[in-house]
Amino acid sequence: MSSVGSDVGIVSTQYFRSTRPLVLQSGSVLEDLVLAYETYGALNPKQDNAVLLLHALSGDAHAAGRHSANEKHPGWWDAMVGPGKAFDTSKYFVICSNVIGGCKGSSGPLSTNPNTGAAWQADFPVVTIQDMVAAQTHLLDFLGIEQLFAVAGGSMGGFQALEWMAHHPNRVKKSILLATSASHSAQAIAWNAIGRQAITRDPLWCDGFYHSDAPPQYGLAIARMIGHLTYVSEASLAQRFPLRYQTATGPGYSLADEFGIESYLNHQAEKFNQRFDANSYLYITKAMDYWNIAQPGQSLSEALADWTGSTLVISFDSDTLYPTSESALIAEHLREKNVPVEFHELHSIAGHDAFLLESSLQTPLIQKFLQA
Amino acid sequence: MSSVGSDVGIVSTQYFRSTRPLVLQSGSVLEDLVLAYETYGALNPKQDNAVLLLHALSGDAHAAGRHSANEKHPGWWDAMVGPGKAFDTSKYFVICSNVIGGCKGSSGPLSTNPNTGAAWQADFPVVTIQDMVAAQTHLLDFLGIEQLFAVAGGSMGGFQALEWMAHHPNRVKKSILLATSASHSAQAIAWNAIGRQAITRDPLWCDGFYHSDAPPQYGLAIARMIGHLTYVSEASLAQRFPLRYQTATGPGYSLADEFGIESYLNHQAEKFNQRFDANSYLYITKAMDYWNIAQPGQSLSEALADWTGSTLVISFDSDTLYPTSESALIAEHLREKNVPVEFHELHSIAGHDAFLLESSLQTPLIQKFLQA
Repeated sequence: MSSVGSDVGIVSTQYFRSTRPLVLQSGSVLEDLVLAYETYGALNPKQDNAVLLLHALSGDAHAAGRHSANEKHPGWWDAMVGPGKAFDTSKYFVICSNVIGGCKGSSGPLSTNPNTGAAWQADFPVVTIQDMVAAQTHLLDFLGIEQLFAVAGGSMGGFQALEWMAHHPNRVKKSILLATSASHSAQAIAWNAIGRQAITRDPLWCDGFYHSDAPPQYGLAIARMIGHLTYVSEASLAQRFPLRYQTATGPGYSLADEFGIESYLNHQAEKFNQRFDANSYLYITKAMDYWNIAQPGQSLSEALADWTGSTLVISFDSDTLYPTSESALIAEHLREKNVPVEFHELHSIAGHDAFLLESSLQTPLIQKFLQA
Repeated sequence: MSSVGSDVGIVSTQYFRSTRPLVLQSGSVLEDLVLAYETYGALNPKQDNAVLLLHALSGDAHAAGRHSANEKHPGWWDAMVGPGKAFDTSKYFVICSNVIGGCKGSSGPLSTNPNTGAAWQADFPVVTIQDMVAAQTHLLDFLGIEQLFAVAGGSMGGFQALEWMAHHPNRVKKSILLATSASHSAQAIAWNAIGRQAITRDPLWCDGFYHSDAPPQYGLAIARMIGHLTYVSEASLAQRFPLRYQTATGPGYSLADEFGIESYLNHQAEKFNQRFDANSYLYITKAMDYWNIAQPGQSLSEALADWTGSTLVISFDSDTLYPTSESALIAEHLREKNVPVEFHELHSIAGHDAFLLESSLQTPLIQKFLQA
C-alpha cells in the first residue's frame, strides 16, 4: 500500500453556486445549487486534460493535499493524486466534486431552504445518482470544460462514473470504475436499509427535524458500524484483531464491551458522528439504493448504448459488497458493444475499502490506462 | 427442500429442574437450574439410542411436531425429525434441549432471581457455551442416559456439539456439525456486537432493567435485521425480491420505506420482538462471541484430544457467516487425530440458514452417518 510520487501540498475547497436551477429526477427543482469542489494541477490551454474524481458515500471534495500545514490527515485519496501519482497532477487537471444530498458543503439537508430561511433537513428533495452528476455538469460548464479526459470513482463514485458514461457520453473520453456495480443488489440495499432504520427509529431523529445539538447519534453510530463492516473483510479484521479481547486475555463475564472489534467499531462510529449528518446518510443511501444504470426493461448494454470511450474496470477479490461478478458484468457488456474495455480483479484482503487503500496495486494500471 | 418421512404429531415441552446447583465458568453458581426440553420417539431398553439436538441463537426446545393441532408452524427442525426423517424417531430417542441464558423456558434473564423474587434481567450471570452444555449434562443424568448415541446441531448448535466432543467425550458416540465453527471469527463477533450496541443504546433498555411492557424493541429489531441478513445470501435475496420496490415500479423520491427488502426486514424484526427478549439476545450473543473450543495456547486438535467418536461435518457454499473454511478446519484437525470424520460442502443458495432449510440435502448424509 506504499505510495508513489509527491504531494499536492496545501489546497482549499471551492464552492460553486450555479446560476441555473437544477431540475431533479423527482421533478423537484433545486433553485439554489451549490457544489463544493477542489482542483489539483492545471487545466492546459487545449482544455483536454481534466480528470473528474467522484467520491463514495461518506467522501467529500477534499481528495488530496492538506487544507493547512497542521491538518492531521490529507485528503481521502491523497495516495492516488499528485505529481507522479496515479492521477498525475503534473499532467492532468484533477477535479474532485462533492455530491448533492450530503453534508460536505454542497446542497443538502443542512443547506438553507430558501422558502423558510432555515435548514432544509428532511424537506430537502430526494436526489439520485443521476441528479448528482447533473449537478456536476453545471460545475464543468462553469469551469469551461467541454469534455473531460477521464472520470474515475470507486463504490458510489463508480456509480457516478457510469452515469457520466450513460447520459453524458460526449463529455468524457475515458472512465475508471473501481469496486463498483451497475445496480444495487438486494443485499447492498438491505444493509443500507438497516442503517436507515437505525437512524429513523432513534427517538432523537424527530422525523428528520432534529435539533442541531441533539442529533440521532446512536442511530447514525449503528448505521456507520454496519456500513464499516460491509467495507472490510474477515481477513483484514482477523489481522487487526489477532487477540479477540480489548484488554483482557479471556471473557470478562459481563454485558460490557470487551472485544477489540467492539472498541474499534465504537471509535469509528464516534468519529463518524463528528463528521457526518444523519439526514445526509439517509439521502445518500437512498440515492445508492435507487441506483440502476439500466432503466426498467433496459439491458446494461442498452443503458450504455451511446458510450464509445475506453473503460478501465477494477474489482477486488475480497470485496463482498460489490463483488467481482458485478464488475465482470459491466466489462462483459462493454465488450459486447465492441468498445475498449480493460478489466482486472486484484487480490487484496482489504475488502471493499481496497479501492481507498491499495494505491500501489491500482496506480500502474491507472497510469497505463490514462496514457494509452 | 422437500421433506421425507412422517411427522411426530402433537408434542409438549417439558421443564427439568435440577436438584444440583450449576457452577458456571465465571464462578457464579446457578442454584435454580431449569431446562426446557422436548423428546420424540422412545428410549430403548439398552438406553443407547438417544440423540440430542442442539439449537441455534433464536431456537428453542420445540424442534418438531405441534403443541396443538391448530399450531400454525411445527417445530423449527420438523423437516428433519420424525419417523423416516433424518433423525428417525422410529429408531432414535430424540431430545431437544433449550439453552440457558435464553427466554424459551430455561434459566435466563426472565427467570426469577431467588434473591429478589423478581426477574433476573441484567443481573443474570453471563453464561458460555460450556455452561449451556454443562446444564444439559444435568438433564441427561435426570433422564438416565449415560451415553448419547449422537449429538447434532447447526450454527450455535454446532458449538454445543463441539463442546460435548471436547469436554464430555465419553458421553457421546457420534457428532453432527452443521454450518458451524470451532471459534467465533472477528467478523461474526462484530455483527453480534453491532446488534448488542443497537439494544444497549436503545433508551428503553434502561441498563438491562426495562419494564416488561416497554422493552427496547427498536434495538432488538435492528439486531435481528443485522442477524437475519448474515444468515441469507445475495442469491436468495435476489430470488425473493426480483423487483426491488415493494409496491411501486420505481423510486418514490421520499425518505419512507419503499424497497421490498425493507418491508421484509421490518416484518422479520416485528415477529422477533414478539418471541424474543432483548436481554437474552445479549446473553446468547455474548456466549457465541466468547466461543473458542481451544483454550488460550491450545490447538484445535488438543482441544479435541479426548474425542474418539465419529464426526459428520457439513458446510454450505453460500454460508458467509460460518464459511466452509471453518468447517474444513475442524475436519482437518479430526483427520490429523485419525478419528473417523466425514466432511461435505453442500451447494445451496440459502446461505447460513441452509442447515434449517436444506433438509433433502442433509437427510441422506445424516441417515447414512447414523446407520454406519
